[in-house]
Amino acid sequence: MILETIEKENDIKNVAPENWNRLAEEIRDFLIHKISVTGGHLGSNLGAVELTMALHLSLNLPQDKIVWDVGHQSYTHKLLTGRRSGFENLRKYGGMSGFPKRKESECDCFDTGHSSTSISAGLGLVKARDLRNEDHTIISVIGDGSLTGGMAYEALNNASRLKKNFIIVLNDNNMSISENVGGVSKYLNNIRTADKYLDMKEGIYNSLMESKLGEPIVTSIRRAKSSVKQLVIPGMFFEDMGITYLGPVDGHNINAMIKVLREAKRCKSAVLVHVITQKGKGFAPAEKHPARFHGAEPFDVETGLPLTPKTKSSYTDVFSTVMCKLGDRYDDIVAITAAMPDGTGLKRFRNLYPDRFFDVGIAEEHAVTFAAGLAAGGMRPVVAVYSSFLQRAYDQILHDVCIQNLPVVFAIDRAGLVGSDGETHQGIFDLSYLSSIPNMHIMAPKNKWELSDMLKFAVAFRGPIALRYPRGEAYDELREYREPICFGKAEWIYHESDIALVAVGSMVKTALTVRDALTKRGYRCSVINARFVKPIDTEILDEAVRNHSILVTMEENVTSGGFGEKVRDYLDENHPETKLLTISIPDEYVEHGNVEILRREVGIDAKTIEDRILKKYFLQEDLIIEQR
Amino acid sequence: MILETIEKENDIKNVAPENWNRLAEEIRDFLIHKISVTGGHLGSNLGAVELTMALHLSLNLPQDKIVWDVGHQSYTHKLLTGRRSGFENLRKYGGMSGFPKRKESECDCFDTGHSSTSISAGLGLVKARDLRNEDHTIISVIGDGSLTGGMAYEALNNASRLKKNFIIVLNDNNMSISENVGGVSKYLNNIRTADKYLDMKEGIYNSLMESKLGEPIVTSIRRAKSSVKQLVIPGMFFEDMGITYLGPVDGHNINAMIKVLREAKRCKSAVLVHVITQKGKGFAPAEKHPARFHGAEPFDVETGLPLTPKTKSSYTDVFSTVMCKLGDRYDDIVAITAAMPDGTGLKRFRNLYPDRFFDVGIAEEHAVTFAAGLAAGGMRPVVAVYSSFLQRAYDQILHDVCIQNLPVVFAIDRAGLVGSDGETHQGIFDLSYLSSIPNMHIMAPKNKWELSDMLKFAVAFRGPIALRYPRGEAYDELREYREPICFGKAEWIYHESDIALVAVGSMVKTALTVRDALTKRGYRCSVINARFVKPIDTEILDEAVRNHSILVTMEENVTSGGFGEKVRDYLDENHPETKLLTISIPDEYVEHGNVEILRREVGIDAKTIEDRILKKYFLQEDLIIEQR
Repeated sequence: MILETIEKENDIKNVAPENWNRLAEEIRDFLIHKISVTGGHLGSNLGAVELTMALHLSLNLPQDKIVWDVGHQSYTHKLLTGRRSGFENLRKYGGMSGFPKRKESECDCFDTGHSSTSISAGLGLVKARDLRNEDHTIISVIGDGSLTGGMAYEALNNASRLKKNFIIVLNDNNMSISENVGGVSKYLNNIRTADKYLDMKEGIYNSLMESKLGEPIVTSIRRAKSSVKQLVIPGMFFEDMGITYLGPVDGHNINAMIKVLREAKRCKSAVLVHVITQKGKGFAPAEKHPARFHGAEPFDVETGLPLTPKTKSSYTDVFSTVMCKLGDRYDDIVAITAAMPDGTGLKRFRNLYPDRFFDVGIAEEHAVTFAAGLAAGGMRPVVAVYSSFLQRAYDQILHDVCIQNLPVVFAIDRAGLVGSDGETHQGIFDLSYLSSIPNMHIMAPKNKWELSDMLKFAVAFRGPIALRYPRGEAYDELREYREPICFGKAEWIYHESDIALVAVGSMVKTALTVRDALTKRGYRCSVINARFVKPIDTEILDEAVRNHSILVTMEENVTSGGFGEKVRDYLDENHPETKLLTISIPDEYVEHGNVEILRREVGIDAKTIEDRILKKYFLQEDLIIEQR
Repeated sequence: MILETIEKENDIKNVAPENWNRLAEEIRDFLIHKISVTGGHLGSNLGAVELTMALHLSLNLPQDKIVWDVGHQSYTHKLLTGRRSGFENLRKYGGMSGFPKRKESECDCFDTGHSSTSISAGLGLVKARDLRNEDHTIISVIGDGSLTGGMAYEALNNASRLKKNFIIVLNDNNMSISENVGGVSKYLNNIRTADKYLDMKEGIYNSLMESKLGEPIVTSIRRAKSSVKQLVIPGMFFEDMGITYLGPVDGHNINAMIKVLREAKRCKSAVLVHVITQKGKGFAPAEKHPARFHGAEPFDVETGLPLTPKTKSSYTDVFSTVMCKLGDRYDDIVAITAAMPDGTGLKRFRNLYPDRFFDVGIAEEHAVTFAAGLAAGGMRPVVAVYSSFLQRAYDQILHDVCIQNLPVVFAIDRAGLVGSDGETHQGIFDLSYLSSIPNMHIMAPKNKWELSDMLKFAVAFRGPIALRYPRGEAYDELREYREPICFGKAEWIYHESDIALVAVGSMVKTALTVRDALTKRGYRCSVINARFVKPIDTEILDEAVRNHSILVTMEENVTSGGFGEKVRDYLDENHPETKLLTISIPDEYVEHGNVEILRREVGIDAKTIEDRILKKYFLQEDLIIEQR
C-alpha cells in the first residue's frame, strides 16, 4: 500500500509519478470502505481525489494554504496530512470532523461548512500575507454549485483588483448537491463543450491572419481590452471581471493539473483554474446517483444500498407528501428550494408541479426575497430550507418578507441538533433569530401528524410564518392528540398539577420521558405542547400557574432569544411568584456526533432535565437516595 | 407649471413630448427646493428624473410594476403618482416615506430600503404574473452600486432561465454611495467607453464579410452560442448568463429610453437595459460632491452648504479619529467597509493607510468573511458597518468569524433608532442577533470618550467583539467617568439605593434624566452603565440587588433576545426576589420620523420610563398628584 507510506503532509512528494494513479485508486478504495461504515460525504470526495493530490504535489503545506469551500470534499486532504486513523471515528462524537478544522491540523487553514465562503476567506488570507510580506501560495477550491451563491461573486468582484497571486480552483462537476441551475451553470457548460466552436474561433483567427486587413486587427485584439479576447480564450465571464482564466483542465489528470497550477502560480493577479471533475468518480453507484451519495448513510460496498434501510418516515418525508397534496388542492402554492430538492423533500412536488417549483441554486438570500416577490404577486410561497442555511437570509426575512407582512411559509428542516455534520450545521439558532423579527410567527410540531396540520395551517395564514422540525425519523406517537391548530394556542398532553413541562416540538417526546420518571418518584406532572413559539400562548400559562408550582420550558435552541426567555418575560411580568426552569442549549457551539450523545452533552436529555428539576425545586433526598 | 398638471399616475402621458424637458427641469427644481428644506436623498433622485419619466411614459401604472432597488431614488416616481404634497413632510413622523411603500400608493408594488433586492423581488412578481396568466410589464430598476451585492447576482443567475419578459434597468452612474469598486464596475466602465473598440469590432466583422472564408463564419457566429456573439455586441457578461443586453443608452434622453424600453418589452426573456445617468444631475454641488448629497441634511440652495453646520462631533467622527490613531500605532490593524467610506468615517483611515483599507462594495457578506480571512492570517480587522446592514452578514458572523473565535472587531454605527430613513434602516436588532451567537462579545459606549476606549479595548481583544453606537451627535458629558474598560465589567455612575437603572450605551443619558426626575420625587436612584451587553456583569448585578429593591434595564433594541432578557435570566436564577423592569423596543417595526418622537412612540423616552417605574412599583399617589 502506497497510502500507508503517507504519514504526514508532503509525504506524497516521495511517491514516484508512475505510482500516482495507483495511489489515487488506493485513496478511492479507502474512502469507499471507510465511508460505507461511518457514513459521510462520498461523491464530492471521490471526485476530488486527483485534484487534491495535484494540489499537495504543487504546494508546500502548511506554509501554503488551501481553503476548501463547504469543506465536505476535504477527506483526501485529511488523508494526505496524517489523519488516516481519524477515519475510524469520522464524524463521531470526539472523532474527526467531516469538515476542515483549524483545531484538527495545522494544514487546515480555515474552517468551512456552509457554501460559497472560500474566495472571501482566501482573499483575506492573501491580503494578510501581502501586508505581512510573507511569501506563500493561497488556493481556494470552490465547486461550480457554490459559485451560484452571491458571496462567491462578491468575492470574485473584489479579487479582480488583486495585483498579487491568488489561485481559485473551480472544481466543476456540473452539480451542486442536485443538478445545477441558472445562467452561470449554462455558461460553464458552454466552456466545457467548447471544442466545437473553439475550432470555429481558430477559423476566425486564421481567416483574419490571411487577409491583409486582418493582421493589424489580430494584433490589436491581443492588446485589446479583455472583452475582445473572447475570440481567443474561453472563460470571458471571469476575464471580464478582471480575473485570469486558465483551463479547462481534466480534473482526473494529475500531470495536467500540476502543469496548469505551475502556470497559475506565476500570475500576479487572481487566477481561476477551471478543473473538470466527475462527482462520485470510481464508484458506480455514486456516479449514477450523485444526490444519494452526497451525504451517505452507511452502505453496502457491493450494491451501494443503505445498510439499515429506513423503516419509519422522516419529517422530510411527511413534509414532502403534504406539499404534494396541498399543491393539488391550491393552485397558488409554489415551492422554493436553494439547491436542495432532495434534502428538503420537494423533489416530488417538482415532479408533479414543475411550473410551481423553483430551485434557485445555493442562493438563500435570493430564495427568500424571490418568495417575497411571489407573495406580493398573489402566490403562496413555501420556502423549504435547512435551519442553519436560513441564517444566510436573516436580513431578507426581516427586510423583504416581514416589514411588508407577506404570507411566506418557511418550512425549516434540520432544526435542532443535526448530529454528524457538527458546529456549522446545527439548527439551534432559528428560534432566536426568527423571534426577534416583528410580524414573524413560529410553530414547531410534536409529531408527524402535527407537521401535516401545521403546514396546512401555514399555507392558509395571512402573514410570515415558520415551522421548524428536526432531522430524521418523525415521531409517530401521540396520534390521539390532534386538536386543530389554532393561532397562538398550545395544547395539554397531560393536565395534572405540581410540575408543568412546556415543551417545544421535538422536546415533547423528551417531556414524556421526564414525566414518566417524575411520576415514578411520586410527583404529579403535566405536559404542554407549546405548538407556537411566537406568539407564546399566555392563556395556557395563566392556566398552568394556577395549579402548578413549577413550570419548565424545554426547547432545542440556544437560550438567548429563545422560547424560555419569552415565557420568563411573561411570567415575571404577570405571575412573579411562579418558579420557572428553562431548558435550552447553552451559549456554545455544539460539535459533531450522535444526536443522543449531543443532547446529553448540552443538557437537554431527559435524565439531565429530571435531575435539574429535582435539584432546583425539591428536597435533595430524591437525589441522595438515588446515589446510594 | 407643467408639474402641477400631474395629479396622478399616467397624467404624464398628457404632457406633449416637446415639454418633457421642461417638466424634467421643473421636477429637478422641485426636488432641490423641497429636499433643501426637509433633507433627503438628493443625488440619486436628480440622476433618475428622465429615467423615471421614460418609465412612466412607457408603462401603465399601477397594472405595470416598477421595483426600485434600495428605493431612495423613487422621489420622481412619487411625484408622478399623485404624491406632490407629500414632500412637505417627507421623511417626517407621520409624513411621506423616503422609500417606496405599498401602504402609501398602489403604484408602489414592493417595499425596498436595503440594496440589491430588486431583481429577486421582480422575478417573484414575474413568476406570479405568469402563473396567474396575467399580462403586464415588470421592471426592476437597479443601480450599478447595488450590482456589487451578491443577491443581485443570485437573481440574475435565476432570471437567465426566463422564457417570459422581465426588464431589468441598470441605472449606471458609476457610483454606489461613494465611488464604485471591483471587477464588475470596471467591466461596466469598459462598455461605457466602448465606442473605440466597437469600431474595431465592426472592422473584424467587415473584414470577415469581405473574405470568402469569412462569410460562412459570420453566419455561424450569428447562430453560435452566446460567447461568440461578443464579436458583435457589448454586455457579454450578461449575455453569458443568458440575459439579453440592450444599451448603453443615455439616461437623460427620454426619447432614446422610450425607444429601447419598447424594444425591451418585446423580448421573451430577461432583458437588461443599460442606462447611463449622472448622479446629482442638474445641481452643481451634488454633481461635484455626490457622496455628500447622497443623503443630505437641509441645505442652502445657492451654495449647497448645510443650513445648520455641525458643531458637535458625531460618534462616527470619534470612531474616525481613533481609527487613524490606532492605524498609526498598530500596523496589523486593517479596516473594511461595504461601500461606506464616508458614512462609516473610514475615509480618513483610507487616506492615511490605503494598503490597509478595503472598500468591498455593497457586499456585507463578503466583508465579514473577508475579515475572518484577514484575522486567520494574523491581522486585526475592524469591520465598520451600519447596524441594519450588518443583518445581511448574520450567517457569516456566526459561521465564519465566531466558530473559529477569530479576532474581528465590528464597529456598528447607526445602532438604535436612526430616524428619517425608517423601518428598513432602524438599528434595533443587533443586540439580539449578535447575542445569540456563541463566542461573540458586545459593548456599547455611554459617550464619546468611552467609544474611544472601547475601540482600543476591542482591537486588543482576542476574539470576536462588537461595539455599537448611535447615529448623530456623540454624547459629550460624563467625561469624569472614565474607568478603564475591563472585560465584562459595568460601571457605577451614581451609586445610591432603592432604584437601580442599568442602561446600555445611548440609554445612559436617558437614565440620568430619569434619575433626576425620580430624585425630585424623593426617591434614591442609582445609575449603572452596562458597558457590556455580552457577557453581562453579574457581579454588579449581585451588588445592586443588595441595596436596591428595583432594577430597571434600559436598551435601544427590541425586547426579544436583548439585554433585558439576559439580566432577567440571571436575576430569576440567582435573585428571584428582585423586581425587574425591562425597557426596550416592542415587537413592531418603527417607522420614519424624528428620533425624539420615535423614542416616545416606542416608550424608551425618559418620561415614559419614569411613569412605568412609578406605576409598577410605587404608590399610585405620585401619579395622581401629578394629574391634578
